[in-house]
Amino acid sequence: MSDHHPATLTDAEIFAAHEGGKIGTMSRRPLDSVHDLSIAYTPGVARVCEAIREDPELSHDYTWAGRNVAVISDGSAVLGLGDIGARAALPVMEGKAQLFGRFAGLNAVPIVLDTTDVDELFATIVAIAPSFGAINLEDISAPRCFELERRLIEALDIPVMHDDQHGTAIVITAALRNACTLLDRKLRDLKVVISGAGAAGVACAKMLIHAGIRDIVMLDSRGIIHPDRTPLNSVKQELARITNPRRVSGGVAEALTGADTFIGLSRGHVGEDALKLMAPEPILFSLANPDPEITPELAYRYGAVVATGRSDLPNQINNVLAFPGIFQGALAARATGITPAMKLAASRAIADIAAERLDPEYIVPSPLDARVAPAVSTAVQAAALAEG
Amino acid sequence: MSDHHPATLTDAEIFAAHEGGKIGTMSRRPLDSVHDLSIAYTPGVARVCEAIREDPELSHDYTWAGRNVAVISDGSAVLGLGDIGARAALPVMEGKAQLFGRFAGLNAVPIVLDTTDVDELFATIVAIAPSFGAINLEDISAPRCFELERRLIEALDIPVMHDDQHGTAIVITAALRNACTLLDRKLRDLKVVISGAGAAGVACAKMLIHAGIRDIVMLDSRGIIHPDRTPLNSVKQELARITNPRRVSGGVAEALTGADTFIGLSRGHVGEDALKLMAPEPILFSLANPDPEITPELAYRYGAVVATGRSDLPNQINNVLAFPGIFQGALAARATGITPAMKLAASRAIADIAAERLDPEYIVPSPLDARVAPAVSTAVQAAALAEG
Repeated sequence: MSDHHPATLTDAEIFAAHEGGKIGTMSRRPLDSVHDLSIAYTPGVARVCEAIREDPELSHDYTWAGRNVAVISDGSAVLGLGDIGARAALPVMEGKAQLFGRFAGLNAVPIVLDTTDVDELFATIVAIAPSFGAINLEDISAPRCFELERRLIEALDIPVMHDDQHGTAIVITAALRNACTLLDRKLRDLKVVISGAGAAGVACAKMLIHAGIRDIVMLDSRGIIHPDRTPLNSVKQELARITNPRRVSGGVAEALTGADTFIGLSRGHVGEDALKLMAPEPILFSLANPDPEITPELAYRYGAVVATGRSDLPNQINNVLAFPGIFQGALAARATGITPAMKLAASRAIADIAAERLDPEYIVPSPLDARVAPAVSTAVQAAALAEG
Repeated sequence: MSDHHPATLTDAEIFAAHEGGKIGTMSRRPLDSVHDLSIAYTPGVARVCEAIREDPELSHDYTWAGRNVAVISDGSAVLGLGDIGARAALPVMEGKAQLFGRFAGLNAVPIVLDTTDVDELFATIVAIAPSFGAINLEDISAPRCFELERRLIEALDIPVMHDDQHGTAIVITAALRNACTLLDRKLRDLKVVISGAGAAGVACAKMLIHAGIRDIVMLDSRGIIHPDRTPLNSVKQELARITNPRRVSGGVAEALTGADTFIGLSRGHVGEDALKLMAPEPILFSLANPDPEITPELAYRYGAVVATGRSDLPNQINNVLAFPGIFQGALAARATGITPAMKLAASRAIADIAAERLDPEYIVPSPLDARVAPAVSTAVQAAALAEG
């Protein structure tokens, strides 16, 4: 069980499926006559250029930018592979672009960047931004991803979201909401341990606080994040302020003692001894991929509800439930950003679809459920419009 | 006659044809099952990432980059509209992307940049380069386009070409070759006047010299370019060195006196008095768009062979004859650049197609002739391979 589909995926079929790339560009209009050329290109196109020069908003309507998401990575934190560089990251970004098309009908263009310097990343992305309607940051390592996303959101008037942070947080929040419903618990009463203070862990903590959870303890590779621990970078200083109200210190054992929810977003390992310290019938989201922090065998033995990141087990926490609909909704609403309220609306929409027939093995919809993206999009649009 | 199709293009049809943009991205593989997702995305894609990390050349085969051209502009010299900025330039770049797909089956992604600073343009394009297999620079004003192209060619190991320079020069050279055949003249004996020392004029002068023409006189808005004229920027200093062997000085009249070929790439105006100074039966390529330097009425009265930039007149000098096949050939050959020999091969291939049935009204193929791009591609590949 050390990989998703060990028996069914062969190198031959993987490479064959990647030959020539997984995506392409296409013309949406005929180009069969001089007349067609005169409209798409010179001289006709000049009329559209002039109109956009007078009113830049029109580029949303008369170019592909209005439905075009840039999937941008510096290749520094790709899947479990780490810092593999721009070129090697491209197949992942192409896959993400496919998913945008498949689930939300959006255009998406992978852009991999040959630098990991935050200032250079920022300047490059700002420079290319007019080519796109929205920006999905992807697989950029922490803590650089936090600064980069913050600066881009400030500088640009189009939606910018680092999906490893917020997509993950949104789906986890949806799953946790449904787990609570199923177990007749209240979100705000949960005692949550988040293992991993990288991109996903940080965003997850913030979103769960926004959703009403008050008791969160965060673990990184050095143990529980606590205000007295030094040194702490600025991101972890903020986490120390907003989490850990009981001022717990120590390691996994101290964190899990009495906790009723575990969210694993790290490469850590949680053994049976630690699980025994938790409150009865815990919620166990063990999301590291391909090797979860808690082995599936233990997780199912101890957990009342179990979720993983794996497609071969129930309750897969998969970002694809969130990002297609979020960007589609934000673009449709012509939102200038993706706010906490829009993210929470997305999360509720995902939860609501699974809530129709909740079961310990069904707290989130299948990643292939075609109802999800439209529902998320509608909810995100409504939230965007409500905020004006 | 002040526009191409004054009677047949309406604003309504132009804007309708641009709604939602003229291009889109598409998935080239099914994404209908968990198995499909596992190949295109995690975990299967990781195998492809690892292979490319070990051998970056594999990105040519297993990502879309191997057939993907970035169409990059800063919006500073768009059609006849001038410096209209990134966003307003996007419809032109989308049109260009359509043409890459239509004629060469390539992917093409428009990238418009929100800066006109050469250092920033350079840094941005270098940073995004691993996303693409080749770079088509477009509608970037002179003289910045010369420095930018030179620096990018030096820095990157993928083909980079500023089409306004070289695409135009390649098609002009092809047309001029066929005009000579038709009139039983020799290229190297021509006395050529080029009006306009912008992107196209400079590249055209250099390519015609490369093709064997010895007597070229260049005009800019201040008259004939001559070594004694001051001030001259570095580009024009080079032109002064390599052109004007008879050391002519003055204006249009002095330049045209005794000349047998006029190539207009400017916004200038050439009247009947000046035409009368030319050698008998001149070749007149009056390419400014939409208003040619020589009115069509005068051009057809005086010229033995006439070409324009207009799609409603014979012998349209249209870059689309060159760039799709050039980039396709360069990518297929895995060339690291587009050399003068590759450009000359492209020009010969274009000329050869029209040479099958030469006529004063047919010295270049129609822009819709589907034979052109494959022939250009084959010729460019052969030239690239011959150079190793």
